[in-house]
Amino acid sequence: MTYEKIDGGVCAAKGFKANGIRCGIREGKTKKDLALIVSEVKCTTAAVYTKNLVKGAPLTVTRNNIADGYAQAIICNSGNANTCNANGIEIAEGMCALVEKATGISAKDVIVASTGVIGQTLSLAPISKGIGKLAEGLSDGIDASKTAAEAIMTTDTKLKEIAFEFEIDGVTCHIGGITKGSGMIHPNMATMLSFITSDVNITSEMVQKALSADIIDTYNMVSVDRDTSTNDMVSVLCNGLAGNKLIDSEGTAFDAFKGALHEVTLYMAKHIAADGEGASKLLECIVYGAKTKDIARTAAKSLACSLLFKCMMYGEDANWGRVLCAIGYSGADVDVSKISVEFASAGGRIAVCENGFGIDFSEELAKKVLSEKEIEIFVGLHDGNETATAWGCDMTYDYVKINGDYRT
Amino acid sequence: MTYEKIDGGVCAAKGFKANGIRCGIREGKTKKDLALIVSEVKCTTAAVYTKNLVKGAPLTVTRNNIADGYAQAIICNSGNANTCNANGIEIAEGMCALVEKATGISAKDVIVASTGVIGQTLSLAPISKGIGKLAEGLSDGIDASKTAAEAIMTTDTKLKEIAFEFEIDGVTCHIGGITKGSGMIHPNMATMLSFITSDVNITSEMVQKALSADIIDTYNMVSVDRDTSTNDMVSVLCNGLAGNKLIDSEGTAFDAFKGALHEVTLYMAKHIAADGEGASKLLECIVYGAKTKDIARTAAKSLACSLLFKCMMYGEDANWGRVLCAIGYSGADVDVSKISVEFASAGGRIAVCENGFGIDFSEELAKKVLSEKEIEIFVGLHDGNETATAWGCDMTYDYVKINGDYRT
Repeated sequence: MTYEKIDGGVCAAKGFKANGIRCGIREGKTKKDLALIVSEVKCTTAAVYTKNLVKGAPLTVTRNNIADGYAQAIICNSGNANTCNANGIEIAEGMCALVEKATGISAKDVIVASTGVIGQTLSLAPISKGIGKLAEGLSDGIDASKTAAEAIMTTDTKLKEIAFEFEIDGVTCHIGGITKGSGMIHPNMATMLSFITSDVNITSEMVQKALSADIIDTYNMVSVDRDTSTNDMVSVLCNGLAGNKLIDSEGTAFDAFKGALHEVTLYMAKHIAADGEGASKLLECIVYGAKTKDIARTAAKSLACSLLFKCMMYGEDANWGRVLCAIGYSGADVDVSKISVEFASAGGRIAVCENGFGIDFSEELAKKVLSEKEIEIFVGLHDGNETATAWGCDMTYDYVKINGDYRT
Repeated sequence: MTYEKIDGGVCAAKGFKANGIRCGIREGKTKKDLALIVSEVKCTTAAVYTKNLVKGAPLTVTRNNIADGYAQAIICNSGNANTCNANGIEIAEGMCALVEKATGISAKDVIVASTGVIGQTLSLAPISKGIGKLAEGLSDGIDASKTAAEAIMTTDTKLKEIAFEFEIDGVTCHIGGITKGSGMIHPNMATMLSFITSDVNITSEMVQKALSADIIDTYNMVSVDRDTSTNDMVSVLCNGLAGNKLIDSEGTAFDAFKGALHEVTLYMAKHIAADGEGASKLLECIVYGAKTKDIARTAAKSLACSLLFKCMMYGEDANWGRVLCAIGYSGADVDVSKISVEFASAGGRIAVCENGFGIDFSEELAKKVLSEKEIEIFVGLHDGNETATAWGCDMTYDYVKINGDYRT
């Protein structure tokens, strides 16, 4: 199956429009803070949410709205998480009502999301004031997805969107998405905010099935700071306008959709890690030769999360003992005496540890490998055939700076 | 029971001597790197070790040596962890043999420990050269414990020792200890290096029982960076010279010993957190009103570990939503709608959240409270009667700096 990368983000699929504006939720700033995505027709939909017990009010409202498996619009603000506020539900429902007023789409078919500071009351006033302009500016032009992607960013430094074209039974289909996420990133069953649109004709049940299976090895394998956010959500809207035969069970058509979804989520996951708060390097932690998939995942994620490992990568120091340390305390059942470690990048590839012990290596080459912006860390367990990858980033002064004064 | 704080550290108890020297394991530096602690007579002993699957060779050798419940000396070097080296066991046993040669104490009665870089071969040569001088300088003078405490430090900035005098059945007893630990600190069943000596007359079994129970709420509730070290170890030596009736079962005498041990371990735990790598503040996270002790511990430790929480404390920003976030993803069974949060310090006390929602508070007072060097964070679950405390430190630029170039 071929998935051709195309432009357009969330507007790449037929029948989707988007827009992003600054309505004034963030005082005294120029950044866009309100995004809207709509489909011409009702969509089947699926979503996954944070497992944090403290959940943003928008997640509760979204869960209710899409309980019937359908949605037609997404509204999302940045600058305020609308979480831990006594009137949170009322405000989130108010945002959906404003979408209905401006677009005619039923408030019950709106997915609502918020991201920003927790525990500060979100006022509907700026949203109410801006919604008309936001709806009027909806477009499927080349920049439409970008304006929406911009509006949902917080500490992100890079706009994150992607789209692919592919075929199902000879019918041309599209899928695309936008995402945000930079700090408080350690998704558990869902992640940050990620909105994915497609014109594939598929039931809600099958979308949910594809999404729930996919996130285990994509979003859930990303960590910036081990802090699972209160507002994480990935949602997928499929409006069926591609015209393929309805996908309502497993088979080659479902596999094609799953593959396309995976292309989008994999791109998103990697780019969230690469744009982690303060990050200067993307760290791709690959554990292979594991007895089970779970062992591979646990070990890979433990490494991606290790603060000492992240600092050493920032320092470009081949202190591989910290890699073994992180595998050793991960809880994964590994045979330490078999572990090998290699570092690789555009600068080259170097083995530093075999059978659990250090081996002679060139410090000069190690420095060259680690000085690149994308580093692969290969951890061989030599104990089986399973592999897993986790994505993280290095720990820098800037992470501390960003999060030492995020609110004030 | 009264535990009077006294001087002397590991030499406070009768019959113990100590010394610390620089033998040259760390090239081109002036810091002491080799410590020796001995008892006049054989001691009952107990120890707990890291749960990391990657274990330092000295831990294996120590475990074998004290399998019979007895020991008489401790040797410890800094600057090299003697971990993940093919000849690690041989070197650790070599260190014990050198102690026998210099002191006459059987190599099989020696506890051996190492701390420093993982995966670099440790040479016996400097230890062999220095052991004579180290043994000759053994003393129970006022500075003896301090020289040993200095020699086991790595990135620690503060020497950590403590001692107490107390009574068992009218007999005066003593207990004291030294410890090190600053980075790679997230103990699991044991911790960093902590050597505790006492003149109490007690069986090895009862020492182990007291130690294993104690660490759950002391060392195991400390985290600097969530990285469980490969070389963590706490060991206790009791030489019986106080002359109390042998403690071989539970009862008031055992309780007195347990209380004394707890005074030492509590002091150590707090001071390790306060001296965390790069730390500028000690964070005492107190969770109360929990349904079970485990819920309180899990929630408290999750908060102490949260990177976003640690950064906000460095920034002295009362961004309490991050406190709720860390409790929410901890895995502890809590009712979010009941949670309250207060910050307290020498600067005052301030409530910022009640019933899971934010309340109005003075930003000015919050800043004053958070600008102190020791901050207490009270998280009320209002769901039961159990309490737990975890100790952590803030995350600063210096942590990143220290760990970006630790090795090179």
